[in-house]
Amino acid sequence: MTYCVGILVRDGLVMISDTRTNAGLDNIATYRKLHVFERPGDRVVAIATSGNLAITQSVVTLVTEGFEDAETGETETIYSVPSMFRAAQLVGRAIREVYRVDGRALEQSAASFDVTMLVAGQIKGGRLRLFMVYRAGNFIEATEDTPYLQIGEHKYGKPILDRAATFETNLDDALKLGLLSMDSTIRSNLSVGLPIDTLMVRRDALQSALRHRIGSDDAYFADLRQRWSRALRDAHQAIPTPPYGQA
Amino acid sequence: MTYCVGILVRDGLVMISDTRTNAGLDNIATYRKLHVFERPGDRVVAIATSGNLAITQSVVTLVTEGFEDAETGETETIYSVPSMFRAAQLVGRAIREVYRVDGRALEQSAASFDVTMLVAGQIKGGRLRLFMVYRAGNFIEATEDTPYLQIGEHKYGKPILDRAATFETNLDDALKLGLLSMDSTIRSNLSVGLPIDTLMVRRDALQSALRHRIGSDDAYFADLRQRWSRALRDAHQAIPTPPYGQA
Repeated sequence: MTYCVGILVRDGLVMISDTRTNAGLDNIATYRKLHVFERPGDRVVAIATSGNLAITQSVVTLVTEGFEDAETGETETIYSVPSMFRAAQLVGRAIREVYRVDGRALEQSAASFDVTMLVAGQIKGGRLRLFMVYRAGNFIEATEDTPYLQIGEHKYGKPILDRAATFETNLDDALKLGLLSMDSTIRSNLSVGLPIDTLMVRRDALQSALRHRIGSDDAYFADLRQRWSRALRDAHQAIPTPPYGQA
Repeated sequence: MTYCVGILVRDGLVMISDTRTNAGLDNIATYRKLHVFERPGDRVVAIATSGNLAITQSVVTLVTEGFEDAETGETETIYSVPSMFRAAQLVGRAIREVYRVDGRALEQSAASFDVTMLVAGQIKGGRLRLFMVYRAGNFIEATEDTPYLQIGEHKYGKPILDRAATFETNLDDALKLGLLSMDSTIRSNLSVGLPIDTLMVRRDALQSALRHRIGSDDAYFADLRQRWSRALRDAHQAIPTPPYGQA
């Protein structure tokens, strides 16, 4: 499986993704699932992928190679789309194209056509936006009310986001919250694992403020995990004993 | 959906269950899912149910009315089984009987035969035990290594248990942890809701130490939720800012 989360706040955007893929428990590998397309001053666009790796790799290749526009004859790629909305449409189009080519054969071998993606970033002249693109190629967008979107194994890491992530959360806190959400997922689900890829983009900067891979030797992440565990333990111990049925 | 958790510790057993059932988002009701069969000094047996309500109600009725033993002609019920192992077998047998009667018709109307149960407690002369019975009627048992079992919407509430629940956790803390696990689930999933039924059994007491329903007016649970939220907020704020890419 996979766990990726995107958090859109007033100050910017954070994207966090694990890198574990598996075809059964006995076939585990590491693949980048957070792809960043950046041209400072013009655009920074991230695509985070979950689902069948053959599909997601094809989609990433297609949006990089692009599609020819039937009218103008020009090729549209993730580096040439004029807006984030068009970027999300391009990813949706690529998913539909992979389905057209591979969908039936996958279904015939009892494999499902399984793919969901986050598409986020900012392109010059437009807003910073965060989308989730479904397997049908359609998509939704994060808003101030619901500033985060998750794909993959999303349930373990949702409670901390539901409690703490708002549009007013500052960017560093958003990164911390995303890492805590990832930590909860990694602890409870073997199919999600280190290293973790992170991206931070400040609103209107049109370039990444951070692109960093967190491995098992990362001192900050190890410290964050330890502090969080200790804080949770202290927190539940500080809660009074249930008064029910006390003699 | 449903969320029920059973935690087996050195001192005893805690069972916690929500009460929400739904047939679509527009048809929500309250049903008890934690059933306690108690005869102080002889036995205290709890059955927590998840899945299709028609099936789970039938199973609970069948274990209460009992099955006739072909050899002895005697009727075996949840009140007469001589051990917890036999109690789990009885529940498994009841599930198979409901499947025999209703399974095919359910599948024909595109409804799945969906049921999982926790069976836990102690019967005079035997140990305190906690089982999870699957839809096939087979079952597994909690152990000192893995002292808790969950049914229903288990992912949201698993991280806190993974971090903190061990066989050496004391009974009051086990109840607190179970309530925190329930709180996380209720916050993130609409299909799980108050009131919450709880049961606490001390090892070898052969009677319940607590049978309590927590409603929306419960001051302790409201305080627990508030303290937990505040503690989580404080905890993540106390974690240092990520050092990555600091200029």
